[in-house]
Amino acid sequence: MSTRPSSAVSRRGLLTSVALLPSLPAVLTATTANAQAAAGVLPSWNDGPAKQAIIEFVKATTTKGSPNFVPPAERIAEFDQDGTLWVEHPVYTQIVYCLDHVGALVKDKPELKDREPFKTVLSGDREAIAKLSMRDFFEIALATQSGMTVEEFRVDVDKWLATAKHPRWNRLYTELVYQPMLEVLHYLRANGYRTFIATGGSAGFVREYSDRVYGIPPEQVAGTEQAFKYGYDKGQRPILTREPKLVLDNLEAGKIENFWLMYGRRPYAAFGNSSSDDQQMLEYVKAGTGARLSAVVMHDDATREYAYGPAQGLPDTKIGTLSQDMYDMAKRQGWAIISMKNDWKRLFAFDR
Amino acid sequence: MSTRPSSAVSRRGLLTSVALLPSLPAVLTATTANAQAAAGVLPSWNDGPAKQAIIEFVKATTTKGSPNFVPPAERIAEFDQDGTLWVEHPVYTQIVYCLDHVGALVKDKPELKDREPFKTVLSGDREAIAKLSMRDFFEIALATQSGMTVEEFRVDVDKWLATAKHPRWNRLYTELVYQPMLEVLHYLRANGYRTFIATGGSAGFVREYSDRVYGIPPEQVAGTEQAFKYGYDKGQRPILTREPKLVLDNLEAGKIENFWLMYGRRPYAAFGNSSSDDQQMLEYVKAGTGARLSAVVMHDDATREYAYGPAQGLPDTKIGTLSQDMYDMAKRQGWAIISMKNDWKRLFAFDR
Repeated sequence: MSTRPSSAVSRRGLLTSVALLPSLPAVLTATTANAQAAAGVLPSWNDGPAKQAIIEFVKATTTKGSPNFVPPAERIAEFDQDGTLWVEHPVYTQIVYCLDHVGALVKDKPELKDREPFKTVLSGDREAIAKLSMRDFFEIALATQSGMTVEEFRVDVDKWLATAKHPRWNRLYTELVYQPMLEVLHYLRANGYRTFIATGGSAGFVREYSDRVYGIPPEQVAGTEQAFKYGYDKGQRPILTREPKLVLDNLEAGKIENFWLMYGRRPYAAFGNSSSDDQQMLEYVKAGTGARLSAVVMHDDATREYAYGPAQGLPDTKIGTLSQDMYDMAKRQGWAIISMKNDWKRLFAFDR
Repeated sequence: MSTRPSSAVSRRGLLTSVALLPSLPAVLTATTANAQAAAGVLPSWNDGPAKQAIIEFVKATTTKGSPNFVPPAERIAEFDQDGTLWVEHPVYTQIVYCLDHVGALVKDKPELKDREPFKTVLSGDREAIAKLSMRDFFEIALATQSGMTVEEFRVDVDKWLATAKHPRWNRLYTELVYQPMLEVLHYLRANGYRTFIATGGSAGFVREYSDRVYGIPPEQVAGTEQAFKYGYDKGQRPILTREPKLVLDNLEAGKIENFWLMYGRRPYAAFGNSSSDDQQMLEYVKAGTGARLSAVVMHDDATREYAYGPAQGLPDTKIGTLSQDMYDMAKRQGWAIISMKNDWKRLFAFDR
């Protein structure tokens, strides 16, 4: 967790460097886009290049007669979750869920107590835990999320989500979704887009609340995912059980590779924040024909949230890192760059 | 391919054994269902228990106030493709596509010429080819459908579909879709259901025509699928390439396991025909709470199509086999049993 003062953020001159989707034809004049904004679109956003890029993209792809018009069936927008739709610091929420289950796991399987990465988790040493790799966390996830039926898992996730709270805000994790991004989801859907999540976390976890929290149904959530196994319970009823075997790995380029595998489409818009699993998705989306929107959320608001990312001269916390390479790519290719500090009037629905 | 006379079909007394979804509450009287039928629902179907089961299922799950009412967001119906939506004999269409590409493949890689299963394919010995296992065909599919970008594959499939013809009817394969099943797809969608395909074949192949032919968009097609790999072309543009590695295997229970992995839902209705990949899906759907429809298409019409399946006392051709075990399960659990010969007035749109 970083608590550096937010003044550090201005070092890179974020506002002046924001790219404005230069490849978009001027279907809308800036005045029209501003009129839209004034009329109540994206109300939690400050006027600025990021908000304007989103509005211009939607106009360009949904206005009949526009050279970049996209038929409704092809209007697909993809969103990363952690750090893009909700808070990912100090630890990814799903990892907190898994860590909360390690105790019960080693009760069942005491032999894991002395094996890494379980040993480190049980030590309670927060610094050591923070240094575990994503592969370590996948191992913990597979161990703690396997062996039960899909229904048992759902019940357990629901129960956890209803009680577990983020230590900084003392609120449920599902309250820590970014209000400005909820408005983007709503705005895109109001314009005929279907919204999808592609997460480095496991799809089954996110599906448990995606509809209620984001308005995104389970079948539009792609994630890293383990295998399921068909079998029968004691009453000979057929069941599906979660297996400790990774089938889809959404880290790095896996996010777009598996999105294609699952849906056979290249999205028209993509929102992400992290070099660990969003960079290739955003690059691939932006490289498509016609008007495309790739957008990166920058965590530069230590006062209202967290500030991190080496591309901004901020600490590399290894969680949701925005690398220099990804930042340079964003500028070069004309992605929308979203500054939490400057572009968002408020972060959460409970901010008044 | 079986050419046994269709009279063989009556041996098992199909009509009398058709199960009528006994677990459905009588939301509709038979008279109401018949009135529906008379009003033009499913016009290519003869009146009978199969048609009635479909109509009663839709009424039970979409009538407000019905104890088995299903909210629109959860209305998902799953369809097998080969043998359920289109003709699968004498060889699965996608296998014909692959076999047509083996010649070009061995030109590029002569070392495959003497290796099985390629050697058998190149021999042209139809009997030997018909004896290849599904695993052999997966190997051929991976070898012939890999190494190109996703766009190059699409172009090749489109080209093939526009010219390749079924030897018996001398028509494009996409013309050999069952008109009564197109009506079921339409009827379900008209009642708020979203229709999905789950095929033992590869999703990428089916997605190329699923929207045009079935009204099912690519993102609602699940299949056996290989890996995709992110990379760059010579101009440094990002590309996705098809890789010779199987990620999802939809044979046997894999169809429902992977449906859950991709969409996180148990369908309310499922249509299939084969023990090789539909049995567990149909069993799992039927075991869900409330009103569920599982339906099996029986190929018992040697005159208009083909007649095969040991459960009907017909030859086991190893393609789309309906086993005795699956047939007994269908009867025991009250699946709808669809006789092509007796339930369908016409098979194809071009039948007048």
